[in-house]
Amino acid sequence: MGGLGTWIPVRGSLGFRVVLVCRKGGERPGAPSALFLPSWPLPCLSPSAFPAWLPGSVLQPALAPGGCHSYPLPAGAPSAWHCLLTPTEPQQAMEGEPTLRLRIFNLNCWAIRYLSKRRQQRVRLIGDTLRQEAFDLVLLQEVWSEQDYSELKVKLAGCYPFSHYFRSGVIGSGLCVFSRFPILDMLLYQYSLNGYPYMLQHGDWFCGKSVGLVVMKISGIIFNVYVTHLHAEYCRDKDAYLPHRLVQAWELAQFIRHTSKAADVVLLGGDLNMHPEDVGIRLLRGWTGLQDAFAEAMHFEGCKNGCTLVPDNCFTDKSELLPFPLGIRIDYILYKAISSFTVKCEELKTTTGRAPGVDIPFSDHEAVMATLHIQRQGQPAGATLGTADPALADVVTEARAEVGAGLRAARRQRYSSGRMAVLALLLLLLQAAAALATLAGLGAEQPFPKLSFCLLAFLALGVLVLATGLHLFHTMEVKMLHGTEDQMWMVLRALQERPSEG
Amino acid sequence: MGGLGTWIPVRGSLGFRVVLVCRKGGERPGAPSALFLPSWPLPCLSPSAFPAWLPGSVLQPALAPGGCHSYPLPAGAPSAWHCLLTPTEPQQAMEGEPTLRLRIFNLNCWAIRYLSKRRQQRVRLIGDTLRQEAFDLVLLQEVWSEQDYSELKVKLAGCYPFSHYFRSGVIGSGLCVFSRFPILDMLLYQYSLNGYPYMLQHGDWFCGKSVGLVVMKISGIIFNVYVTHLHAEYCRDKDAYLPHRLVQAWELAQFIRHTSKAADVVLLGGDLNMHPEDVGIRLLRGWTGLQDAFAEAMHFEGCKNGCTLVPDNCFTDKSELLPFPLGIRIDYILYKAISSFTVKCEELKTTTGRAPGVDIPFSDHEAVMATLHIQRQGQPAGATLGTADPALADVVTEARAEVGAGLRAARRQRYSSGRMAVLALLLLLLQAAAALATLAGLGAEQPFPKLSFCLLAFLALGVLVLATGLHLFHTMEVKMLHGTEDQMWMVLRALQERPSEG
Repeated sequence: MGGLGTWIPVRGSLGFRVVLVCRKGGERPGAPSALFLPSWPLPCLSPSAFPAWLPGSVLQPALAPGGCHSYPLPAGAPSAWHCLLTPTEPQQAMEGEPTLRLRIFNLNCWAIRYLSKRRQQRVRLIGDTLRQEAFDLVLLQEVWSEQDYSELKVKLAGCYPFSHYFRSGVIGSGLCVFSRFPILDMLLYQYSLNGYPYMLQHGDWFCGKSVGLVVMKISGIIFNVYVTHLHAEYCRDKDAYLPHRLVQAWELAQFIRHTSKAADVVLLGGDLNMHPEDVGIRLLRGWTGLQDAFAEAMHFEGCKNGCTLVPDNCFTDKSELLPFPLGIRIDYILYKAISSFTVKCEELKTTTGRAPGVDIPFSDHEAVMATLHIQRQGQPAGATLGTADPALADVVTEARAEVGAGLRAARRQRYSSGRMAVLALLLLLLQAAAALATLAGLGAEQPFPKLSFCLLAFLALGVLVLATGLHLFHTMEVKMLHGTEDQMWMVLRALQERPSEG
Repeated sequence: MGGLGTWIPVRGSLGFRVVLVCRKGGERPGAPSALFLPSWPLPCLSPSAFPAWLPGSVLQPALAPGGCHSYPLPAGAPSAWHCLLTPTEPQQAMEGEPTLRLRIFNLNCWAIRYLSKRRQQRVRLIGDTLRQEAFDLVLLQEVWSEQDYSELKVKLAGCYPFSHYFRSGVIGSGLCVFSRFPILDMLLYQYSLNGYPYMLQHGDWFCGKSVGLVVMKISGIIFNVYVTHLHAEYCRDKDAYLPHRLVQAWELAQFIRHTSKAADVVLLGGDLNMHPEDVGIRLLRGWTGLQDAFAEAMHFEGCKNGCTLVPDNCFTDKSELLPFPLGIRIDYILYKAISSFTVKCEELKTTTGRAPGVDIPFSDHEAVMATLHIQRQGQPAGATLGTADPALADVVTEARAEVGAGLRAARRQRYSSGRMAVLALLLLLLQAAAALATLAGLGAEQPFPKLSFCLLAFLALGVLVLATGLHLFHTMEVKMLHGTEDQMWMVLRALQERPSEG
């Protein structure tokens, strides 16, 4: 609940309870005490705004609408003391305020060290905006440098005292979460397929793409928050990575289904690298029952169709967006209430090619910002982890066909790399035999000049090593595609056996 | 609930409902019908034992205590028809029988193609025994060949109509489950660390070691059944894989915690490659609250101390067991009731160096067989996913120290492999410069004979490629160890902040 003496911003949609007043400078806390702030006019704090001390008093959201800063206590408080605030307990937050309002920020930050343009400036800008805007929950992708994360963490410590960076792969998953509310638990699931290590120009393999889960309890409501980033699509017409992305979408859906059974509300934010009508997103939504904040939003403001890769953004690759003059939507906030709660999207916003109030965008992607209303309802919603979509079987069939096509391609690649390895091995053995024969004096002269002979041997050795590596990799790929195909088949069978539940 | 016309064995601790009578030979089913079997004297079936037909009637366990076979319907039934039985609904099963009795079989099968001795004979033996004994649930490890799994599946289709094989890694996870009860859902979690690909003589890396989860509903009780196999221990005194095994134990515990929140009962079976007092098993048990069937069993029969690698087994490596004259216990069945259920281990058995009634053992490991009693209790057990063990913080601290030591070692290896790659690159550049200088006529003569020069260049290239690969691998290793260390630290902090809940 924040270190002693930590400053927690007094802002947002939930109340705060003043739990401790402690000395400035991180010394040990004094005796618990509290102050009542009937109208704390942040960010312009006036000492006269603190008329009374009341232990355990609550700052209601309406009374604390300001920015996100640290403030010394006013005159009247013991001098040089700070106060420690923590989010209020469920009862207090729900008191006379049955709806929990949650503001979520999601962004693919495009912060690749040495490669992304104006990275440091943009990361600073993202940090500044997050501090000013004080969302409840921030989900970031492509924060590839841990140093960028650390700098953001320091900068946002006041507003978002709880955060987590998910480590994975060679470069890192790039995923992190900043939160105003305590993170109770977390888990990382690395997708079993994620492109090819030899596709260096794409590099997805090196990121160890994953889904990160953080569990939070806000106002007594258990939130399972997922952040993810799926494999990129480099060529839509001939998308070699579609089977891998579908396996990822399937594993993401399965991971959410299995880990969210005790959650009241499920939130997923991330760069899914899929258009809204793509089979992968239909599979994910169909199999988890997640709803699309853009489609459900009562009020929308931002790029047309909610696009998050738009030509107006100076960092996007215009040639890639030629077939889509308005841009494409690949970044999402999805949500779902599992138990006796309802979630509604009051508002969805995207940035529009540049960050608010400045000339450059946050990233080559637009940020997605949602305001959700979470309300307890009398009886359980009955929304289980499955879904009521009757078209689900069709979606799973479609996805399974794509995975099957990927499986056949992977088997071909496994076969060719294996054959190549065997040929290289044969060549090496042949050379070894020739060399031995020469040494034994069987051949009168060497069949080749020494240099060519050695070069050929090294070449064969190199091919053998590489082809063996490829063969092993494609064997793993075959296993995972086959496993996913099998799982989908089992689900299809279950859907067909129990169509009414499907 | 089993394919149409599938025969489900009428045996065990639960009742069965007769739901369909269908034609012999897998044709489409006839109209639903049923038969009442007041005392089905299996395995010696007599047609006169079927006095009446009653739709939807239930076979009570006490009435169906026999073996596991297929039986044609008796005289009086439409000729050449078979009946389809499914496990009874919760109400029926619990009726007058408030305790569910579950018999579980766990075995590391040591079925490595071309390497394991008398593999095919042993797999046949395992299949025969499982068919005769008719357990409720069978958890197998080291079934590396999918063909072995398929053969078992065919052989066991009558007794265990539901099964799943978990695919993973190059060779496969080796994990599979056979069950008398329908498998409703499954998920595979591949451990992020699992040895080193260059340790070919150990080979763990190639197996993609994982934990498999299958969800089942038996008598209305939701079971989360986990099967796993952790990294082997090759040298206890200087165990280079300890940090990896600890990361696996931690990920296993986290995976169980996060996925079992809706389960009533959690079961874990597998070869954990840890002695009962090892830090990894204390961590796993402490962090999940799982209980050890051996320690809790009311009645035990088998190798002394429940050992599962014993000198009496003709396939075990006797030199490895020299410090442990009685053997070691590394295969476990662990369990836990989460909601309003209690689980008790009525009996635990192990094989004792050979399979029952024959001369050879099933494997180099002993099988572990548990009989569990699961009982509904009036109020929730209150056992949450955490644990009440006050020593948990100490265990996490101890595990974290080991992971930290592994992290330092991995950093050293990352550094040395990186330095090696840089040196190889420098050598290559130097050679390139020398070659260019020679070509440009700057040097009067070649500094080296052509052959040595080329050999050196190839050597440098080979070292560069290998060292870069190693560097990338150790970078991933550092990331995962660091991530685990971080997670453990967060847990420690939470335990210290909430000691009463710890």
